[in-house]
Amino acid sequence: MNNMQAASTLHDDAKRVERALARLLCADDDDDTDLMAAMRYATLQGGKRIRALLCLAAGALADTPAHMLDDVAAAIEMMHACTLVHDDLPAMDDDVLRRGLPTVHVKFGEATAILVGDALQAHAFLTLASLDAPGDNRIALVRELAQAVSAEGTAGGQAMDLSLVGKHVERDQILATHRRKTGALVRASVRMGALCALAEDAEHAALYCALDHYGDCLGLALQVIDDILDATADTTTLGKTPGKDAAAQKPTCASIMGLQEARDFALDLLREAREAIAPLGPRGERLAQMLQLAKAYLFKQAPCG
Amino acid sequence: MNNMQAASTLHDDAKRVERALARLLCADDDDDTDLMAAMRYATLQGGKRIRALLCLAAGALADTPAHMLDDVAAAIEMMHACTLVHDDLPAMDDDVLRRGLPTVHVKFGEATAILVGDALQAHAFLTLASLDAPGDNRIALVRELAQAVSAEGTAGGQAMDLSLVGKHVERDQILATHRRKTGALVRASVRMGALCALAEDAEHAALYCALDHYGDCLGLALQVIDDILDATADTTTLGKTPGKDAAAQKPTCASIMGLQEARDFALDLLREAREAIAPLGPRGERLAQMLQLAKAYLFKQAPCG
Repeated sequence: MNNMQAASTLHDDAKRVERALARLLCADDDDDTDLMAAMRYATLQGGKRIRALLCLAAGALADTPAHMLDDVAAAIEMMHACTLVHDDLPAMDDDVLRRGLPTVHVKFGEATAILVGDALQAHAFLTLASLDAPGDNRIALVRELAQAVSAEGTAGGQAMDLSLVGKHVERDQILATHRRKTGALVRASVRMGALCALAEDAEHAALYCALDHYGDCLGLALQVIDDILDATADTTTLGKTPGKDAAAQKPTCASIMGLQEARDFALDLLREAREAIAPLGPRGERLAQMLQLAKAYLFKQAPCG
Repeated sequence: MNNMQAASTLHDDAKRVERALARLLCADDDDDTDLMAAMRYATLQGGKRIRALLCLAAGALADTPAHMLDDVAAAIEMMHACTLVHDDLPAMDDDVLRRGLPTVHVKFGEATAILVGDALQAHAFLTLASLDAPGDNRIALVRELAQAVSAEGTAGGQAMDLSLVGKHVERDQILATHRRKTGALVRASVRMGALCALAEDAEHAALYCALDHYGDCLGLALQVIDDILDATADTTTLGKTPGKDAAAQKPTCASIMGLQEARDFALDLLREAREAIAPLGPRGERLAQMLQLAKAYLFKQAPCG
């Protein structure tokens, strides 16, 4: 597959997931509140869909039915949007711009933004629970996603991130924070795709381990790249306000390591992820494309999602 | 069972659920943020545990293993706490007092309160997904809980509630709001207990319908009673600031129907719930006790939860 074909596949995959989101988040006719409209605004205004694409790429390792994978990827995007909407709130990161548009609380008010996040989380689990798949598969997916956004995952990572503001922080602390805040959901996206695709036998257990290592490296790399872009890109490229981390005295990989070392570290992580999926051979092509995409963000300074 | 025995059973049941909550919400040793401490504060400071008790009462209709029921009830209480912590935020109902103590955002800050709600929702689903029960049972429970707090449930109900402030509202509108805002999770609590207890056959389908009708009536009654108490009780009795609805120009059953009619309506609903479980005979005793408890709140002006 050449680069243009690869880009076209990614574009088509993202559209598939957006169609699933639009289908899964539709308003009750009796409802005259803004809630569902705001939930659609939070999820259907683009974004790179990296987590959804990772899920589809891992899911493509077997003949998983497309409609199942689309819904799993859509559930992951709902959960990602939940974390973004809440992180953007004035009491948290206080962001007014996301993907080049006003954030949910700016457009719909803070109360609605809080409820949008809560309802998106519920709809993500409802989507997984309603999949046309055996109960054991569905429950494994619910468990992965719940773990990823628990106090040991994104919620704990965001709490750590806020607790580090203005403090002197060691490299290990910031990496542990990033692994939870961003890494946990990226890693879960790969694992959930793999859960759709892989049966329970010894060969697949080894594959699953490889994919998990890949997801762990890529998840951390994406947050390092995000830190670099926050320090170097402009609003148009970023789609959100740049320089927020420095202004908020928030320690990042860029501020702790310096830009060059942070870039090298991100490239090392992407290389490690590539090695993790080497045993997959040509079957890992789509997962390898995702690493190319992350690299393109790092150098072209486009936003990570 | 006499009244004292009944009160003692309810007390023991509440303690069982609190032990399950304390076990399920325990901190990672590496974690130096306040997040888990705040999650425990949000869930372990008492409350009447009505939803948990309803789940246990419905679950007691068969020999469901106690540890399974305790964890399901604890998951419901985590979800209830999630909605309370977010509803209390300044951008929502702006409450500073809950169960006689400072609300989570007053004690731990707004950012932590937002994350506490998010993480409690995740841990509720994680608890259900981790039950020692077949995948199909666990997924049915996840689905019930997710539906109850979705845009069609509590999140939508709270959005409707906020949208009605300062408006002229018809009785049907306020009842539809109450059914979603409070009723959905109460009803789900009964249904989830029943899901633990009942097999899939025709007799049980009829029982399930009866229990669902009971849960629907009781859920609505509890919010009507809450409206009445907000208008009539003092801070000590209520454990939270009274008169908030009137001060916020929030339409309630008490303001729309008047206090006497609202009381009569609550009693009618409790009577309807009693009739719904009449076919259960003596097996429905614990569910009947819950109606007595609701009635006691209405007349003794103790808080509902």
